[in-house]
Amino acid sequence: MTTPQTDTLVSFAHELADAADKAILPMFRSGLDVENKEVSGFDPVTAADQASEKVMRDLITSRYPDHGILGEEFGTKASTHSEGLTWVLDPIDGTRAFICGMPTWMTLIGLCDETGARGGVASQAYTGERFYADTRGAWHRDRSGTETPIKVRPAPSLEEAIFCSTSPDLFTDALIEPYLALKARAKLTRAGGDAYIFCLLAAGCVDLVIDPGLQPYDIAALVPIIEQAGGVVTTLDGRPAHNGGDIIAAASKELHEEASALFAA
Amino acid sequence: MTTPQTDTLVSFAHELADAADKAILPMFRSGLDVENKEVSGFDPVTAADQASEKVMRDLITSRYPDHGILGEEFGTKASTHSEGLTWVLDPIDGTRAFICGMPTWMTLIGLCDETGARGGVASQAYTGERFYADTRGAWHRDRSGTETPIKVRPAPSLEEAIFCSTSPDLFTDALIEPYLALKARAKLTRAGGDAYIFCLLAAGCVDLVIDPGLQPYDIAALVPIIEQAGGVVTTLDGRPAHNGGDIIAAASKELHEEASALFAA
Repeated sequence: MTTPQTDTLVSFAHELADAADKAILPMFRSGLDVENKEVSGFDPVTAADQASEKVMRDLITSRYPDHGILGEEFGTKASTHSEGLTWVLDPIDGTRAFICGMPTWMTLIGLCDETGARGGVASQAYTGERFYADTRGAWHRDRSGTETPIKVRPAPSLEEAIFCSTSPDLFTDALIEPYLALKARAKLTRAGGDAYIFCLLAAGCVDLVIDPGLQPYDIAALVPIIEQAGGVVTTLDGRPAHNGGDIIAAASKELHEEASALFAA
Repeated sequence: MTTPQTDTLVSFAHELADAADKAILPMFRSGLDVENKEVSGFDPVTAADQASEKVMRDLITSRYPDHGILGEEFGTKASTHSEGLTWVLDPIDGTRAFICGMPTWMTLIGLCDETGARGGVASQAYTGERFYADTRGAWHRDRSGTETPIKVRPAPSLEEAIFCSTSPDLFTDALIEPYLALKARAKLTRAGGDAYIFCLLAAGCVDLVIDPGLQPYDIAALVPIIEQAGGVVTTLDGRPAHNGGDIIAAASKELHEEASALFAA
């Protein structure tokens, strides 16, 4: 079997996102029942989450039966592809936002091989937006179909930086003090956003995003978007981001180092 | 001068929102300079904020010269109307969201008389949505122009409730303990959203919203939207909401009482 080119596969990821959008949108802001995924705590999962992952898995299995799949809802299908090509899927990243009716949840589709993430698509079906990356660069497409290259726009220092995270509650134990120190230094701190804030970093709106405790499917699709836009994304201790963990993304190497250092102290 | 009917004035509020949308959108996610409105803390105000309030004030002054105006950016113009009709304007509610590129800031246009808020429009220009209220009820209009009546959908108890606030940082001093108690009881707590979360309460997505320290222009437009949708909105100590303060909105009288009681204790 010939190896499909990355850009062909990113185009296929858009087909997956189209199918997911179509499965999810009719259930957004409708009276969905919400199950509790865990007995303790609250990890909501909706019918939309499951329906959209299923439709994407079916499309992948049918088109590229040798590719692996790692999905939030239905687990892992091992790759038999020579380069270990694997699709990393989060059908609805930001399920809390989805449940609350906020138009900032995203469908995340990452394409990984044995070495890392090659391409990714992040889709917001309600606004009709896509953020994505292929070998040409990182892009934003709005609902009118206008495609714009995106690029980070780093602040010159932490004191001038816009810092976002999904929730202060993600910073626990040893992360609390560095979080408060960073918040005290940054020009603006804002909570809320999930994958969307990583995309906005790639688009030059935000300088720094830190979200502890991410799963591979929360971040794999976003790694090439951030990197192709000129940003830096790793774990807080400097390891590759596509496997998840405590993730830091910055609009420049300098901001990445400065903020990471606060957490290493 | 005859008194224009409320519904005519709400239609006029949509014209104001159209003009504001047009003034703001080209500056959303562009490289805007951000001024610091206050020396201490950070209260961002953008050129978009000022441009859109100006265009709305000009339209009001031209069409209804006797109406008052209370705007976030340019202050108060006293009403000389017999019923004290006054437009309460927040050109960009959620300036932090705006600066970060999140599509959840809103233009708020409230119509008040001496007794309170008569009608209101909340517009999100990027998603193309409007939430609004006139004498007929509360409504959502999407970017395709589809108009849907909205209605609260209260959870049966605090333990089943979805609780939103713009930021935990708004809860200071005596508000901290009640906030933590409420968060511990609610089924789901989410930070982020500004006016948008009050609209989502009216639309039946969210059960409880508490935002301390609001100004009149942060809430006046939202009061009729929440009330016409069947919700209850007051200050935490039970006074009318349209003048601002520590605001609580609930999808039912019972949830309102249960949550308010935590803060009264």
